[in-house]
Amino acid sequence: MSAGDSRPIGVFDSGVGGLTVVRALMERLPLESIIYFGDTARVPYGVKSVATIRQFTAQIVDYLLRQEVKLLIVACNTMAAVAARVIATRAHGLPTLDVIEAGSRAAVAVGKGGRIGVIGTPTTINSNAYARRIAELDPSARLYSQACPLFVPLVEEGWLDHPVTRLTAQEYLRPVLAEDIGSLVLGCTHYPLLKPLLRELVGGNVQLIDSALTTAELAALRLSDAGLAADGSEPATYRYVVTDVPLRFQTIGERFLGRSLGEIERVDW
Amino acid sequence: MSAGDSRPIGVFDSGVGGLTVVRALMERLPLESIIYFGDTARVPYGVKSVATIRQFTAQIVDYLLRQEVKLLIVACNTMAAVAARVIATRAHGLPTLDVIEAGSRAAVAVGKGGRIGVIGTPTTINSNAYARRIAELDPSARLYSQACPLFVPLVEEGWLDHPVTRLTAQEYLRPVLAEDIGSLVLGCTHYPLLKPLLRELVGGNVQLIDSALTTAELAALRLSDAGLAADGSEPATYRYVVTDVPLRFQTIGERFLGRSLGEIERVDW
Repeated sequence: MSAGDSRPIGVFDSGVGGLTVVRALMERLPLESIIYFGDTARVPYGVKSVATIRQFTAQIVDYLLRQEVKLLIVACNTMAAVAARVIATRAHGLPTLDVIEAGSRAAVAVGKGGRIGVIGTPTTINSNAYARRIAELDPSARLYSQACPLFVPLVEEGWLDHPVTRLTAQEYLRPVLAEDIGSLVLGCTHYPLLKPLLRELVGGNVQLIDSALTTAELAALRLSDAGLAADGSEPATYRYVVTDVPLRFQTIGERFLGRSLGEIERVDW
Repeated sequence: MSAGDSRPIGVFDSGVGGLTVVRALMERLPLESIIYFGDTARVPYGVKSVATIRQFTAQIVDYLLRQEVKLLIVACNTMAAVAARVIATRAHGLPTLDVIEAGSRAAVAVGKGGRIGVIGTPTTINSNAYARRIAELDPSARLYSQACPLFVPLVEEGWLDHPVTRLTAQEYLRPVLAEDIGSLVLGCTHYPLLKPLLRELVGGNVQLIDSALTTAELAALRLSDAGLAADGSEPATYRYVVTDVPLRFQTIGERFLGRSLGEIERVDW
């Protein structure tokens, strides 16, 4: 019987949003240690240029490799959308997975030739990353996408069930819902916090794909396939590393994580 | 008769917002050359820590000093609020002025012992910078402040007269308007674009203080007092330097500037 691998999983995002993925990982894989990296000094990435996002991403991957992680999870749709090649090159064969891969797989699993909606930041949507991946997985699927730039600030304001958020969501979702979609991919790690509101707006016939949950599922599969799962012989530990600890970070972070954040480490770049 | 000083005015902000100040300067001081610096790779500052904002600010000031500007204008409320000392130290005696100074002066000029409202980003409001400066200028003034974190993303989305923006503004302004204020300082360079909507909401008895306009007035006074004004013997030139040229930058920038942006220079930090 082989020993478990107690090295941590490295999860990274441009800010706090990726904590929704950490939360899902904690529930799905309670024996695994996690190190989370959030680039809070330079968040948000979703409105920056591709060249800048790639440069920032490379820096984060290098940092996590130095922490000896066993699996890299890109919990940021924007980085997954425009920097996947940079990440693969830097990772030197270390297993990696990202929220776009996980969300695309879950969307096509709903049914062959499905009508799929995707919502995300402007950069994610304009990258066409979901469209490309879904077309590879099921060429008969039809994709309808919509950028929702105000959802991130609304979530960070904590207006999760506010008339303003409802009105904004109605406006953003109108064209996508007009296409009679069967599933809607929440293509941004902030959006799971809007799930109750979105579920109400899309109605009972549309399946919401929460890429935090689907990413945790894919991580479990990948660790098991590669024989990298922890066996519980060492207690799971959680580390949170950020580039800035802004006002309200603790409050907002804990809203995403669904539990206390404990100690936060700051690196100065 | 002394010759005019044709060196440019250096104007800086965390992103595009400061272009509202550039626009006001172009109209008030058409003979002056301007170099604008927007830190678009790291925008927004309003949600970052004080230590990080100070470090970024120092870097920008050093850059503009190397461009041989004759006057430094801090067109970013957040930097003015938390990094004024850093700016003064780095400037080594070069004249500087900022949007908080300009807005505070204009607010107290409305009337002694006035009831003044101030709206801005969370960092600006939490810094109490307006409260301190207004108290120095008129200890009998009463200040009521409100952070409006969603205004910047709403302006950048272009929803300047949208039901969502109206509803958001009603919610943010309710407590301030309940205080029977006589003036409302728009303490963020994005907010002048919301002026028509805000004017309608606040009613005819509240004077809106647009710190872009008041900053241009103060700049004119400062140049004239210091004998630094240009005399028109050389044509005014405009340079726009940013750390990133994101998607839609041209469109958004021109909305703020009210005219074509021309060529944009990018520095890579």
